[in-house]
Amino acid sequence: MEISKYPRQVVAFAGGVGGAKLVDGLARVLPAGALTVIVNTGDDFRYMGLAVCPDLDTVMYTLAGLAHPINGWGLADDTRQMVGMLQHYGEAGWFGLGDKDLATNLLRTQLLAQGQPLGEVTAWLCGRLGIGARLLPATDDAVATMVETDSHGLLPFQDYFVRHRWQPVVRKLHYQGAGQARPSPGLLDALNEADLLIFCPSNPVLSIAPILAVPAIAAAVEGRRVPLLAVSPVVAGAALKGPTVKIMTELGYDPSVAGIANHYGQLIDGFVVDTQDADVQITQPKLVAPIILDTTARRVALANHLLAWAAEGIS
Amino acid sequence: MEISKYPRQVVAFAGGVGGAKLVDGLARVLPAGALTVIVNTGDDFRYMGLAVCPDLDTVMYTLAGLAHPINGWGLADDTRQMVGMLQHYGEAGWFGLGDKDLATNLLRTQLLAQGQPLGEVTAWLCGRLGIGARLLPATDDAVATMVETDSHGLLPFQDYFVRHRWQPVVRKLHYQGAGQARPSPGLLDALNEADLLIFCPSNPVLSIAPILAVPAIAAAVEGRRVPLLAVSPVVAGAALKGPTVKIMTELGYDPSVAGIANHYGQLIDGFVVDTQDADVQITQPKLVAPIILDTTARRVALANHLLAWAAEGIS
Repeated sequence: MEISKYPRQVVAFAGGVGGAKLVDGLARVLPAGALTVIVNTGDDFRYMGLAVCPDLDTVMYTLAGLAHPINGWGLADDTRQMVGMLQHYGEAGWFGLGDKDLATNLLRTQLLAQGQPLGEVTAWLCGRLGIGARLLPATDDAVATMVETDSHGLLPFQDYFVRHRWQPVVRKLHYQGAGQARPSPGLLDALNEADLLIFCPSNPVLSIAPILAVPAIAAAVEGRRVPLLAVSPVVAGAALKGPTVKIMTELGYDPSVAGIANHYGQLIDGFVVDTQDADVQITQPKLVAPIILDTTARRVALANHLLAWAAEGIS
Repeated sequence: MEISKYPRQVVAFAGGVGGAKLVDGLARVLPAGALTVIVNTGDDFRYMGLAVCPDLDTVMYTLAGLAHPINGWGLADDTRQMVGMLQHYGEAGWFGLGDKDLATNLLRTQLLAQGQPLGEVTAWLCGRLGIGARLLPATDDAVATMVETDSHGLLPFQDYFVRHRWQPVVRKLHYQGAGQARPSPGLLDALNEADLLIFCPSNPVLSIAPILAVPAIAAAVEGRRVPLLAVSPVVAGAALKGPTVKIMTELGYDPSVAGIANHYGQLIDGFVVDTQDADVQITQPKLVAPIILDTTARRVALANHLLAWAAEGIS
């Protein structure tokens, strides 16, 4: 499977911080209108009555140049006055919603309450922030990643991740609602029109899998006629961010670079590993490139590497 | 109509900042459990999907010792990060909801959405803030003060007051929904058990009238067997706060101290005027006392004056 031209339409699959960084590079390199980002919605939840979409917002804030420079999620120069007052009321305040971030969540909650689907709400928010790339939630329907734990039973993802600081041992993941969910409008067309698909360096089981758990998305990805590249979310045996290694180990996956390549198996046409992992043995075509994306220059460089590799036919 | 003992159960009728200051004095003077405050809900509205109750919150924050020391409304040391981000999205952000204040509004909105009536929600919030006085919304039902203007048609109160900075000329006020509204649970009992009723120095037409527009409250006040005292919201011809003089003038009322005493007429049993207005001629028994309540000492002093006047039989 190869293409002999530079990709003109690219679809990237992304979770939160790690995925957002590569998406940032792609958005800077590709012309306007050439990039569609399918974002995980399995982490979405209601908090204080607000519709919170952590991954959509991380990607959106990153593309708008508003993301917190250290955390990667949330907004730069945000504060937590609301959460502090919640605690004054004796309420948990376990989810650190920033005050500026509340504007996004209030607008989204209100538009959803007026009957707009999540995809339209996301497009509206992105438009107001001047974002050129198209962000699509995997689905407008409710999908919830539920974490089955040894010690605390079945936890909604943010409960597990934030309230319990991803400490309980994970036994199984459930993508509730995914089996009945439909791809968000425009998503299948974007997949059909793409020259190149990319799995961003996001957690395979927490970010990419909930998207592919929507049957029509999985079918479109499996039936595609264009290359699908994946970027490793692990460098030298350690996750770039978050609990990837811990959770994959507990679930019985091999969380090494080779293990993740093996996990994606024949679904992908090429795997990008960091220069630190240049010698790793995998079955797919391999591209070695710096994949630690802590600067704009590195994000742009990796985006260019990926597009060039696709243009050269991936081998 | 007189009582020969010190009041043991007091019910105060209050709007926002002016009323809250006297309530603060009463709460400091009366023993725990002796004070019920009936608060105007005509200014309540939905903003960004949130249930905002300006007067309830002003009284609540004042009693909790959390009110903004200069404004009188809102919380001390609050910020406006959320509103700033709303403006970044290109949204009006005309209502200056503080970030800390959002905690109150989010909690209230969520509890209301779960089916709790406003009175219970208010009791819960007050309990969490350690407030000993009982705050009752005039009604759990929806009442909306609508301002009929010359230039902008019919405006919801906050639209008129905040967005239009109370500049349009007022032709008429409507207390929408009041005619069908029921007093909040416990309110009629509180009125029946009280030894003394007090109209705080709040706007007669914007704060007190919407409460009395609930028919069962008006009937209970008119049929009472105990004294009702009112404190002038005007000193030396100027309102202590806000648009009282402007709006009353436009509505055809005489907004002087004497005019307001005349407006209350036989409904009240005594009227408290400031020392600056000692010579004013009114038909009711008159108490002259300092009623500018900018310090705790003055609030306590006026509360003591009122209770002593009631105990002495009002003359």
